Amino acid sequence: MEFKKEFTAAIVIIGNEILSGRTVDKNTSFIATWLNNKGVNVEEVRAIPDKEDLIINTVNELRKKFGYVFTTGGIGPTHDDITSESISKAFNQKYQYHPEAYKALEDYYRNSDFNKGRKKMAKMPEYAKLIPNPKTFAAGFYVENVYVLPGVPGILQTMVPYLEKIITNGKEILSISIDTGLRESLLADGLSDIQNRYKEIDIGSYPYFKENPGTVVVLRSQDEESIKKCELDVKNLISTLKDA
Amino acid sequence: MEFKKEFTAAIVIIGNEILSGRTVDKNTSFIATWLNNKGVNVEEVRAIPDKEDLIINTVNELRKKFGYVFTTGGIGPTHDDITSESISKAFNQKYQYHPEAYKALEDYYRNSDFNKGRKKMAKMPEYAKLIPNPKTFAAGFYVENVYVLPGVPGILQTMVPYLEKIITNGKEILSISIDTGLRESLLADGLSDIQNRYKEIDIGSYPYFKENPGTVVVLRSQDEESIKKCELDVKNLISTLKDA
Repeated sequence: MEFKKEFTAAIVIIGNEILSGRTVDKNTSFIATWLNNKGVNVEEVRAIPDKEDLIINTVNELRKKFGYVFTTGGIGPTHDDITSESISKAFNQKYQYHPEAYKALEDYYRNSDFNKGRKKMAKMPEYAKLIPNPKTFAAGFYVENVYVLPGVPGILQTMVPYLEKIITNGKEILSISIDTGLRESLLADGLSDIQNRYKEIDIGSYPYFKENPGTVVVLRSQDEESIKKCELDVKNLISTLKDA
Repeated sequence: MEFKKEFTAAIVIIGNEILSGRTVDKNTSFIATWLNNKGVNVEEVRAIPDKEDLIINTVNELRKKFGYVFTTGGIGPTHDDITSESISKAFNQKYQYHPEAYKALEDYYRNSDFNKGRKKMAKMPEYAKLIPNPKTFAAGFYVENVYVLPGVPGILQTMVPYLEKIITNGKEILSISIDTGLRESLLADGLSDIQNRYKEIDIGSYPYFKENPGTVVVLRSQDEESIKKCELDVKNLISTLKDA
């Protein structure tokens, strides 16, 4: 599948927890699944440490290359949370309190200590627009085509739905998974033929090695009629191979 | 922490299964943890689709920038497995059968069909050196500082230990996790002070939002004495904050 730039996206995972091996990244899977339903294809993911120059360069490279860039992580209250300031620099915008973001946090912390760390979470690029956070009230934000989200999956997942109307919808990317029950190498020739007949479909082949090894074939396409025909062809291939 | 180039690494996840959101990447965590024990720091991770030019450009960029590059995925028998051929092109080497890899597969498939797809898994860059695969016998390989591994975690994990003597050991990167039981914003000021006193230690702060929200502080360093002192300082900070 080839996508127009406006329907492409990149994800930038910011912070050391993925790179050090401590944490498995779950945000890519959530964001990519959500985008696929909207017809937007994730074409690259990068995980980088919280170093200012790296964040600036990576975001500036990817926001020119793709329709959307999503960043996760580094917008909390501590010294290692430098995403918002770095994004401000990437866009040459002042890094300052966003009045509405500040107000939301002030209300939330009314009966406790609205301390420096908490205030910091309201600092953003000058022309940032907010992405509300219904769970912990520290908002995310976006500037042009760059969407800045937190790293904690449980919070990110409550915020992404607010982007529903902000991200332009393309044609939904359909996906069909077929567990063939066959070893990948048996399928290879037949699948290759099918891929040659259906250029508009991405055919992926994913082996597994449980008690009985097998392969899941995944079809991805925006063409509903074509993907259904292709599914039949794959199922016929499986029958033929099983009868052989 | 700053590392000499020879003790840095990048990981390239090749294939559509991560980008489409279908699969959560577990290989980064495994490889990074293994490398940290050997004193090698993962400084960047990229996930890219199985497109030849992207694989070539990404690998060529990263192998100059970092001491090691590990790729995962795309070395199986099917049409979407194009990593080995792409790496051959990245190094301007012929893409051909590796005699030893061919022999291992031929022996393994002695009593079944050693078909085209299975033979394909023995094709590699001309000067590739093998990484044995004790589980399914389709070897990985390396060329210069680029290490090519499969995408299936259960297979990758049986192959990485063969690199034990091939990757030069640095000084182990130590890691200490402290569950503070405190909200991140309460820790922010004190942690920032501690980070300023211990420049040689990476101090990460990772909030969680379970029934009782809290924060895990992670210290990473190659300096054993220093990390232990720093741990005490963080524990003292926690006590002070809890008594307040």
